[in-house]
Amino acid sequence: MRNIKLIIEYDGTNYHGWQIQKNAVTIQEHVEKALRQLLGVQTGVTGCSRTDVGVHAYGQVAHFFTDSTIPGEKFSYALNNLLPRDIVVQKSEEVPEDFHSRYSSKGKKYRYLICNSAHQSALMRNRACHVRPELDFEQMRKAAAHFVGEHDFAAFQATGGQVRSTVREIYSMNVSRKEDKLIELEVSGNGFLYNMIRIIAGTLIYVGMGKLRESDIPGIIGGLDRTNAGKTAPAQGLYLMEIYY
Amino acid sequence: MRNIKLIIEYDGTNYHGWQIQKNAVTIQEHVEKALRQLLGVQTGVTGCSRTDVGVHAYGQVAHFFTDSTIPGEKFSYALNNLLPRDIVVQKSEEVPEDFHSRYSSKGKKYRYLICNSAHQSALMRNRACHVRPELDFEQMRKAAAHFVGEHDFAAFQATGGQVRSTVREIYSMNVSRKEDKLIELEVSGNGFLYNMIRIIAGTLIYVGMGKLRESDIPGIIGGLDRTNAGKTAPAQGLYLMEIYY
Repeated sequence: MRNIKLIIEYDGTNYHGWQIQKNAVTIQEHVEKALRQLLGVQTGVTGCSRTDVGVHAYGQVAHFFTDSTIPGEKFSYALNNLLPRDIVVQKSEEVPEDFHSRYSSKGKKYRYLICNSAHQSALMRNRACHVRPELDFEQMRKAAAHFVGEHDFAAFQATGGQVRSTVREIYSMNVSRKEDKLIELEVSGNGFLYNMIRIIAGTLIYVGMGKLRESDIPGIIGGLDRTNAGKTAPAQGLYLMEIYY
Repeated sequence: MRNIKLIIEYDGTNYHGWQIQKNAVTIQEHVEKALRQLLGVQTGVTGCSRTDVGVHAYGQVAHFFTDSTIPGEKFSYALNNLLPRDIVVQKSEEVPEDFHSRYSSKGKKYRYLICNSAHQSALMRNRACHVRPELDFEQMRKAAAHFVGEHDFAAFQATGGQVRSTVREIYSMNVSRKEDKLIELEVSGNGFLYNMIRIIAGTLIYVGMGKLRESDIPGIIGGLDRTNAGKTAPAQGLYLMEIYY
């Protein structure tokens, strides 16, 4: 069997996340449906990241096995003809049989967008978290620096996460100003706990609002207690940018 | 009567443009409906630019007269509670009685976005024009420079435009690369003919594809013949950014 890797972009607004579930439309379901139409047989697709309801992706990665003779790079074109316009396979290629979208991954990059203005943006209404009070951008930048490195991020995990270890390494974390009153958080690391980026974003928003100080961050990380961190920021601001292999 | 100026952002995807018309939902209609709900009387709103179906705006300007005592800057909050989420009043203020959103305007700035990649972007599907062949960015930049200044732009006017003079001044025109394979065209000028930006964008795309040379542009402008210019690029890539007063 040939192993095909897909890089998938999607607008998560209209979906109940990546993973197939009953009574809700998901991205995985659409990709498998398109593959069944294309190949004539039910073909399971394994995605790297189980993005939540409303979360977007520029670089979700999935793989599937097939005995089809379609050249690897042609699957993107064939599938995009069958997929809704808010799910696009940006790249497809044949990979070695032992490649696994989840187990082979070495890290990920996420983006979180905040629209900091008196009114939410009409164009970014499903693409950014709206925060009305003016955020102290410099304090947010300083706070972000404390997250970089290897830490036990137990304080930044939603209940329901089931992992052996809560130690993760954050390679980089940058907060920058974009046009149209947007603040962008970009984080890359070797792995992330359940809702970790959204809790980090919510904590940085608290710092920006003055509800927490940037100097509180090391203690919040060290305390290993979820209740010390900020609120979980909404899903609509989150983007899975890239998965490293 | 007090004169209130509104700066309005909208996602044009779901609307038949700004101006009220029969049998189609428009942005002006929603704003007037929200005003009627708020003020209890039918209140006509005059917009500066009659944006077409699918065109977006960060900075449409409109004005209306009222004898309401609501402070000018509070209208934005009150109207946003009544408007759909894809239409947002970003600012409201009381202005002198002789201010007119259209007749007082001194110029406008537009943006046109092109997604230059093998596949359209899922996230930008209604926000950028998709062009598959790789565009020659440097040629497009050179071509753009020829448009700056005062010219007769008769070659860049769609049929149906009814203006006395087709002479306009373009103050600046910049082509730049953005992330995610986007090419951005930003144009400001004292006024624009019907579909002028979209025809300029289509002409620059032809230059980028090698169907026209950058050195052809002065002759196309000088020829005053619409058929020499490129195709009208699709509405979804166009944004009304700002109106100058």
